[in-house]
Amino acid sequence: MKIGVIGGGQLARMMVPAAVKLGLRLEVLAESADASASIAPHVVGDYRDLDTVLDFAGRVDVVTFDHEHVPQPVLHALVAAGVAVRPGPDALVHAQDKLEMRRRLTELGLPVPDWTPIESPADIQAFLGAHGGIAVVKTARGGYDGKGVRVVRAAGEAADWLDGDVPLLAEEAVGFTRELAQQVARRPSGEVAVYPLVESVQQAGVCAEVIAPAPGAGRVAQEAARIATTIATELGVVGMLAVELFETEDGRLLVNELAMRPHNSGHWTIEGAVTSQFEQHLRAVADLPLGSTDPRDDWTVMVNVLGGPADGSLDRARAAALAAQPAVAVHLYGKAPRPGRKIGHVTAGGADLEDVAYRARAAAAAFD
Amino acid sequence: MKIGVIGGGQLARMMVPAAVKLGLRLEVLAESADASASIAPHVVGDYRDLDTVLDFAGRVDVVTFDHEHVPQPVLHALVAAGVAVRPGPDALVHAQDKLEMRRRLTELGLPVPDWTPIESPADIQAFLGAHGGIAVVKTARGGYDGKGVRVVRAAGEAADWLDGDVPLLAEEAVGFTRELAQQVARRPSGEVAVYPLVESVQQAGVCAEVIAPAPGAGRVAQEAARIATTIATELGVVGMLAVELFETEDGRLLVNELAMRPHNSGHWTIEGAVTSQFEQHLRAVADLPLGSTDPRDDWTVMVNVLGGPADGSLDRARAAALAAQPAVAVHLYGKAPRPGRKIGHVTAGGADLEDVAYRARAAAAAFD
Repeated sequence: MKIGVIGGGQLARMMVPAAVKLGLRLEVLAESADASASIAPHVVGDYRDLDTVLDFAGRVDVVTFDHEHVPQPVLHALVAAGVAVRPGPDALVHAQDKLEMRRRLTELGLPVPDWTPIESPADIQAFLGAHGGIAVVKTARGGYDGKGVRVVRAAGEAADWLDGDVPLLAEEAVGFTRELAQQVARRPSGEVAVYPLVESVQQAGVCAEVIAPAPGAGRVAQEAARIATTIATELGVVGMLAVELFETEDGRLLVNELAMRPHNSGHWTIEGAVTSQFEQHLRAVADLPLGSTDPRDDWTVMVNVLGGPADGSLDRARAAALAAQPAVAVHLYGKAPRPGRKIGHVTAGGADLEDVAYRARAAAAAFD
Repeated sequence: MKIGVIGGGQLARMMVPAAVKLGLRLEVLAESADASASIAPHVVGDYRDLDTVLDFAGRVDVVTFDHEHVPQPVLHALVAAGVAVRPGPDALVHAQDKLEMRRRLTELGLPVPDWTPIESPADIQAFLGAHGGIAVVKTARGGYDGKGVRVVRAAGEAADWLDGDVPLLAEEAVGFTRELAQQVARRPSGEVAVYPLVESVQQAGVCAEVIAPAPGAGRVAQEAARIATTIATELGVVGMLAVELFETEDGRLLVNELAMRPHNSGHWTIEGAVTSQFEQHLRAVADLPLGSTDPRDDWTVMVNVLGGPADGSLDRARAAALAAQPAVAVHLYGKAPRPGRKIGHVTAGGADLEDVAYRARAAAAAFD
């Protein structure tokens, strides 16, 4: 079984150890020869070009993804050509297009923030009027890590986007107390595996830290599992699904975003769960039995390494992190330091949350 | 930092996930294009050919090994050319040549079976006479997995070996109750990290199963740690060192064999220890701070997958193993099934040894 991964970022990179372990072959369609996943067998090409992608698909048994940017026409052409595309285009569109996602989740009766499609300043004005003068305007496509999202208090603040080609939606600015993420995996046969609910701590729109399991989640964890399982099943997702959620002051959950691939909020599973999200994703897309999602420690904390050391020396910073925290797992993505760039992450586990978080943060701080 | 691994077997293969994790680049000098480690960047060449090895060494920052078969003249020529060779030839010779190893350990006052070099039938006869008519005759070089080892009761039983080119030694046939293995890692600075002592269960001269930690080891574990630390330090080992030990009925330990690389008896560390032996080996050869060797479970059991399924279908067997044991880690080496060949291993962990061993054996049995 040979798995083709479209996209050569760190998510494809972290699938490599899982493929090595399971004895599955893997090949990457990378954006460039120095992509993070170019440590694996790869070809370099443009994932938007149908001929390139068809040629790549011909070299493998099943196609999956490092990102959700492959255009729908390309995905549908692959399916028409008989390629096993997992997740398939009709599922993936809900991770590509926020309007499609909001429509479908609303149809399914799942909890989402109030939302509406936006086509004019008047649409924004009306939505602002109905929601206390504040709204979150999003581009339906192309956003990630806080990009394509803008909090507005007047219609004119989204004027540039209204002039663009990308459809927009407005959502209520949810008064949430924290952000949570629920990972599940689903294989073609329908088998679903549910991970523990986690808390995702954001800074400036980017995930900074993940705590597994989400402290004090209780009943909310059951609700999150129900929501994610429903989405995976009803949308026919194959592979990992990450459901990003808001928890409100009154204990409700609202779905924020979907990702149909391994996700930053699941990196903790590499050391923290019996089966990592990367191995689980490969098992699911290869239609193999799913693995145990049980946690391996009482608490696991993952901290992203963002930007990298001021002196530019990853070698020095890595040595400092390993020396300071011999029991913390340090993951680097083979990416050059650049302000704000995710270049790695660290993971600690143990019985005492305060100690675990301290050790993870201390290891990450070695990269400042 | 780019690490060159000479040899493309499963040990080099299992270094790949560790290199991916730490952000270290790795390149393999493989025996063939379909070697187990050919999933990593590699060149194909003969490790006995100096020009080939020098050319390979020129592409990397440090050279290490998947096996101990690189000839001493090649190793010394690398050192003379300024290549960082870890472990170096003067350490590695003790894993290559059992006579050198026995001489040195005897000098160091470490416990070994009675032994003598053998050059003639009379030498064997004399050793048999002094040891109750039974001896273990070994070729000093080239043996592994039970090859190059023969139990003899008469001098004539080793006549073919006496006619050969390889020096021989005779050792007492130790009345041991079990075999143990002690892993340690040492980096150039001298830092040593000691793993828990494990029990290694052999079948027909091949490691079948490893139990970590060795049940009821107690004081013996301290002695094993002392022996292995002494060997690593006195011999100047860099990287992983595995010391295979006999435990005798009266509770003594005797050193059997040495390996200066990751070793089958340490595969349990991938899931069972905070830092795997493969990551530890890379840390040591890259002169990075060593990681924690703490176990992650009360008990870890590793079972080798030998030979492979009778119907030849690894895909079917893997799916059966994953379905039967969702919490057991299944590792396959990308090798075709063949009677007696190590093609993978499985690892289980938990609080109850009987349950852990049952689950590991059940997963391995799916490959019968």
